[in-house]
Amino acid sequence: MTKRILLAAAAVLALPLPAFAQTHDVAALRDAALKDDLAWEITEGLTTEVGQRLAATEAEARARNWAMKKLTALGFRNVRSEPFKMPVWVRGEETAEVVGPMAQKLTLAALGNSGSTGAAGLEAEVAYFASFADLQAAPAGSLKGKIAFIDHRMAPTQDGSSYGVFGVARRAGPSVAASKGAVATLIRSIGTDYHRNPHTGGTNWTVGVKPIPAAALALPDAEQLQRLLKRGPVRLKLVVTPQFKGEGESGNVIAEVPGSDPAAGIVLIACHLDSWDLATGAIDDASGCGIVTAAAKRIMDAGQPRRTIRVLWAGAEEPGVFGGRAYFEAHKGDRHVLASESDFGADRVWKFDATLPEGAKPVADRLAAALAPLGVGRGGDPANGGADVGAVIQSGVAAIDLAQSGLRYFDYHHTPDDTLDKVDPAQLRQNVAAWTTMLAVTANAPEDIGPTAPVAR
Amino acid sequence: MTKRILLAAAAVLALPLPAFAQTHDVAALRDAALKDDLAWEITEGLTTEVGQRLAATEAEARARNWAMKKLTALGFRNVRSEPFKMPVWVRGEETAEVVGPMAQKLTLAALGNSGSTGAAGLEAEVAYFASFADLQAAPAGSLKGKIAFIDHRMAPTQDGSSYGVFGVARRAGPSVAASKGAVATLIRSIGTDYHRNPHTGGTNWTVGVKPIPAAALALPDAEQLQRLLKRGPVRLKLVVTPQFKGEGESGNVIAEVPGSDPAAGIVLIACHLDSWDLATGAIDDASGCGIVTAAAKRIMDAGQPRRTIRVLWAGAEEPGVFGGRAYFEAHKGDRHVLASESDFGADRVWKFDATLPEGAKPVADRLAAALAPLGVGRGGDPANGGADVGAVIQSGVAAIDLAQSGLRYFDYHHTPDDTLDKVDPAQLRQNVAAWTTMLAVTANAPEDIGPTAPVAR
Repeated sequence: MTKRILLAAAAVLALPLPAFAQTHDVAALRDAALKDDLAWEITEGLTTEVGQRLAATEAEARARNWAMKKLTALGFRNVRSEPFKMPVWVRGEETAEVVGPMAQKLTLAALGNSGSTGAAGLEAEVAYFASFADLQAAPAGSLKGKIAFIDHRMAPTQDGSSYGVFGVARRAGPSVAASKGAVATLIRSIGTDYHRNPHTGGTNWTVGVKPIPAAALALPDAEQLQRLLKRGPVRLKLVVTPQFKGEGESGNVIAEVPGSDPAAGIVLIACHLDSWDLATGAIDDASGCGIVTAAAKRIMDAGQPRRTIRVLWAGAEEPGVFGGRAYFEAHKGDRHVLASESDFGADRVWKFDATLPEGAKPVADRLAAALAPLGVGRGGDPANGGADVGAVIQSGVAAIDLAQSGLRYFDYHHTPDDTLDKVDPAQLRQNVAAWTTMLAVTANAPEDIGPTAPVAR
Repeated sequence: MTKRILLAAAAVLALPLPAFAQTHDVAALRDAALKDDLAWEITEGLTTEVGQRLAATEAEARARNWAMKKLTALGFRNVRSEPFKMPVWVRGEETAEVVGPMAQKLTLAALGNSGSTGAAGLEAEVAYFASFADLQAAPAGSLKGKIAFIDHRMAPTQDGSSYGVFGVARRAGPSVAASKGAVATLIRSIGTDYHRNPHTGGTNWTVGVKPIPAAALALPDAEQLQRLLKRGPVRLKLVVTPQFKGEGESGNVIAEVPGSDPAAGIVLIACHLDSWDLATGAIDDASGCGIVTAAAKRIMDAGQPRRTIRVLWAGAEEPGVFGGRAYFEAHKGDRHVLASESDFGADRVWKFDATLPEGAKPVADRLAAALAPLGVGRGGDPANGGADVGAVIQSGVAAIDLAQSGLRYFDYHHTPDDTLDKVDPAQLRQNVAAWTTMLAVTANAPEDIGPTAPVAR
């Protein structure tokens, strides 16, 4: 369906057209977005003027103010911050030293929710596990007094799926090691680069397991430790002193492009505003906020869409999706018809996946045709939408994923290296074009987009 | 000249042949070296078992012991350590924070010989200079109370020549800034990568200039500071607390392959044993020691060469070539006929340059022919030999450079990232093959290799 044909039909019928058809030429919007500057401006501004913005810290609060001011200046409506409470964890000192005749320092970073060694540190022998499965197989009590070191060989994947496979060492490894008596856990960073920049990220403690110090070694250091272990037993002196600081405040920032047909529901597009504390969070996730916001702005400037587009810059995604869950609790009465998130860097979109109710399948067909010129293929996987819209989607809302290439993502993810220079402006623009296309098609679709079956997970 | 022809001649004449001709088939030695494991073994062993080995520290002393043990075990003769005294400088704390509404941390590393802010640190406004030349042009006294920030845009070069061009900002920038009243100096790291790993390296103070704190920002941080400066004045809180620790001991480690003809002189091949303190010094310069030693071992195992090959693992190169100068003072009475050093990483040799006396020009012709199958071209530049053999060469000794590719070198040079994983085993072997070829040709050359004209520098 093209604008020209619709306009011709309108001239004949002399009837008012739906707003979207009067104003939105999908192909023209898509191609214009390939010259977008706004996504870069947002990414550059947020990472330069605020820098790191760890959840529930003063820096994240500054980021919310930055976001509100920016979204208001861009002309969005109903710009507001919705605060929520959450537990606060902050990094302290972190050093590791090999003790004995091969004395040397190793580079590491505490994992989010890590326990503390105390300022005096601890010294213990290292127990090696080639994988998380090997750690699981260790007998109960066998790690008493030891530092568990969980190794692995993560490889990059286009779709990022290796993060699921290897990330368990970080998410669950420390808790499993603690339950078997370990005094601390080190993991090889969940990453694919060879720089002295450890990959942090959250770890989870099973109920009843007391947090122990848990940290990630940079890959060169993990391999150094592996080589040292081949020469004999290794003792390490660890000082890792993060703190749990009780309850603090974070918040979601929301902005809207109001639709012409309130009954048609809301298209929710998200990113997250917080970052880990080691870097300025350019690809995780300032660029995501830049992409979705620039796309929404393009639709807004082209004329009122049928459906309301709601932009969510979620707070506190990194330590455990606190913002996404707070959003769902606050807005479960709203009529969301579609949800999507950009939270996988700034490299190009290579495919899309859609989970839509049967009656809205033509929407995906039109989207496939409109995205093809950007080099975006049609995938057959279920769309999961992203962490911050996960609860909304699981409640039975349709989802579309614009899947970005993951080949570089885990070189930088959660490291000090997640800085602006990692964002390729040309690929960033291709993302804006893909999101603009997706919004132009979905926010204006004449079909009803009803609920999907709630997802069992 | 091939082994087969000489052997045939020998059978006819029934006379004893020179040792080199009986045993050294240059092409066979070269090709066998492409399967070398020893250079890797040395590089892996030194970087794993000792790690960083800053000059005149306990770690460097451990590295000397490691070297003596290894060189003895390999069968070298006259293995010894020659100690010398030098001033000791060690790193302390180092943090930088933007003060004010855009508060954030920047990543930096003190330069060797940096002064200290004291534990309390200092706070001052930043004065920006786009280049060292701009700093030089600043009026006297104009930097009073300021932190000078020297920016530049170093680009990688095959021959590493950009280090000379841009490195002046590090070597001389802090002293120039101090002389104009600056309270501290920051430079954009002299490097070509985009990781949060600053490039340290020595800086020099003009006589009469009191050392001020001087540090290098990682490239992403230097560009962040540049972006912040575009938004307005920037104040920084700096804490940089290195210490000058008085006089300490370093030492050179020497090993030999004695030649059959003492009058033919010594071929000196060098590397340096010390490293900066931020990394394990795999490419700077453990791999250099691995390369020259593996090549000398191959010659030794193939039969006694005509000339003595002396292997020098110099101490304390990084803070100011203390080992190279101590070696020259101790050995200026020795008859060196050729000197060369491997101190530019472990990437492939792409050309060679030779500075030889007129009578030895055929040596270079034979070397060109023997190196060509390794993809090594003949350059027309004067050979400079390397820092640790610089004094020897300047005294009038011939030199050969086996020039390694510098395209990656300044991604890692003097950073925490100079670790074993940066060494490509295949390229390392090509280096060993080139050095083995060079030694087979030069140590056995029947020509006299006399002095060159002393070099004016």
